[in-house]
Amino acid sequence: MLPTIKWDHDKVIMIDQRLLPNQEIYIECKNHEQVAQAIETMVIRGAPAIGVAAAYGVALGMLTCDNNSTRDADFENIYSRLERTRPTARNLFWALEQMKEVFKTSWELELPALQQALINRAKAIEEEDISMCRRIGDWGKSLIAPGQTILTHCNAGALATAGYGTALGVVRAAFAAYKNIHVYADETRPLLQGARLTCWELEKDHIPVTLITDNMAGYLMRQGKIAVVVTGADRIAANGDTANKIGTYSVAVLARENQIPFFIAAPLNTIDFAISGGEQIPIEERSPGEVRKINERLISPADIKVNNPAFDVTPAEYITAIVTEKGVARPPYEQTLAALRNE
Amino acid sequence: MLPTIKWDHDKVIMIDQRLLPNQEIYIECKNHEQVAQAIETMVIRGAPAIGVAAAYGVALGMLTCDNNSTRDADFENIYSRLERTRPTARNLFWALEQMKEVFKTSWELELPALQQALINRAKAIEEEDISMCRRIGDWGKSLIAPGQTILTHCNAGALATAGYGTALGVVRAAFAAYKNIHVYADETRPLLQGARLTCWELEKDHIPVTLITDNMAGYLMRQGKIAVVVTGADRIAANGDTANKIGTYSVAVLARENQIPFFIAAPLNTIDFAISGGEQIPIEERSPGEVRKINERLISPADIKVNNPAFDVTPAEYITAIVTEKGVARPPYEQTLAALRNE
Repeated sequence: MLPTIKWDHDKVIMIDQRLLPNQEIYIECKNHEQVAQAIETMVIRGAPAIGVAAAYGVALGMLTCDNNSTRDADFENIYSRLERTRPTARNLFWALEQMKEVFKTSWELELPALQQALINRAKAIEEEDISMCRRIGDWGKSLIAPGQTILTHCNAGALATAGYGTALGVVRAAFAAYKNIHVYADETRPLLQGARLTCWELEKDHIPVTLITDNMAGYLMRQGKIAVVVTGADRIAANGDTANKIGTYSVAVLARENQIPFFIAAPLNTIDFAISGGEQIPIEERSPGEVRKINERLISPADIKVNNPAFDVTPAEYITAIVTEKGVARPPYEQTLAALRNE
Repeated sequence: MLPTIKWDHDKVIMIDQRLLPNQEIYIECKNHEQVAQAIETMVIRGAPAIGVAAAYGVALGMLTCDNNSTRDADFENIYSRLERTRPTARNLFWALEQMKEVFKTSWELELPALQQALINRAKAIEEEDISMCRRIGDWGKSLIAPGQTILTHCNAGALATAGYGTALGVVRAAFAAYKNIHVYADETRPLLQGARLTCWELEKDHIPVTLITDNMAGYLMRQGKIAVVVTGADRIAANGDTANKIGTYSVAVLARENQIPFFIAAPLNTIDFAISGGEQIPIEERSPGEVRKINERLISPADIKVNNPAFDVTPAEYITAIVTEKGVARPPYEQTLAALRNE
């Protein structure tokens, strides 16, 4: 199992995903501000993984609280700092809400006991995430047939979660069951999570993978080289509209045009039941430098105007099924997702 | 006018497009082998530009012929070397055929007169290319309305032609007519012709341009930010199926899905009337290193398997119109393209 994030003696250890695959460097966060910056700068990324990181960030932050009279204010500061790190992934807010729930129900506890309760909940969120990924893989493999080729976009793998992965959880489970599957990985500009992270992960697990640039996926589909598409999700609206890494919408349209099933793999805590449709999902716009430069070197005129939305929204109509830890939802998602939640 | 390629005192001068926009370096080719290598390594690229380069390559090669008894064999060697440089662009073969025609009809000439005839024809091909681009621009601007945003993929600009451009010829003519147009440029991985060349060209001409990664185009279309798409072409079959830079097919599918007109801009010598459909167009597969590395630095595991088709084929059904120097063809292309040829 690849180590994405771990709690270790009152510190949080993360692999620096910005440096993969060229360097495998682990960084230590000693306070919630360092965790917040690690999320913002994408040392750690992937919706479930930043949820786990935020939970640990709260636990770490509250360890520095040494005065019972400031615990409410301290908690609010830590919470609001972590809440402002990235806007799109639902799991970040879900994890923070989980930690707030522990904080609220622990009002009778002394400070050390409260601190331990927060650490325990964060560790539980990490462990639950891994077990949800394994269940997603188990449900998802039934959607894959032996010998199929699977296209994925970005990295929804062990590195995007506490371990095992969502979309790559489906890939791992299918590979364990059938052996003869093959993955095509979109490189996923601007930050190249497909080229850097998905290829690295799958190669470590000896799962056959071919790297392509994002603009090749449609042509491979047209040639009949892709049997199914599986991606992760950053936030899913109650109607099934799904925000995921920029480019996912294009892949979904191309899949439908070529009669290829398009699957989303995500835990139920990625679903935002409070919003009815994808147009309400906030989409993060990141720095122009991510597009203008690769490895710190300019690939365009220095001052060129840039758009850099980190995510897009795929309307539910393009999504064949959504694979969760409780089962596979199919349209109409308003009903099937709600039913899974209530199981 | 940007200098793409020029004949200068028995040498051919080209701007090294691999180094743009960071460095503006001109290279000299003194023989046909240097021209062939410049085409292969993409010092010069773009279907019309490599046609012009190949024509100059023949003229340059035949200058070294100093024995009338070897002129037939020399010509065949030069011709077949240049013919093997790149397989997809029709214009390369068209230009070589033009030069062969001059060679054949000059059989009565002495060697120096033959050499001059070949130089003259190559210069004429260059000049005709620029004037064809201007006529393409003139026809194409009627397809653009004031205030519109135009998406383009790769570089079909002055740098891809002898000057002015095909797709960017339409952009230039529309900008000259209306002023208030705006271009979105796909960066065009793996070789980043959009980020490096299209942005550089348009910025020099003060035409407003925004750079995006290839996987953002669909999302911008969905948001209503793109009014029309215009790209160039490397080879067009008699039925209108069009080979162009990898990713063009995806852009065309996304355009149709979002009810956005998708135009091809190309001279008639890009059309291969000898083939009936796009499945017969040879698609070049280039080196895996172009995908694994950017600026010589690895962006993926070093030995990862890669697909790297340089082009794809957009079926005619996705193409709203094809803009040529003789007018605008609309479906059914078998008839309208043939009619333009015979005008």
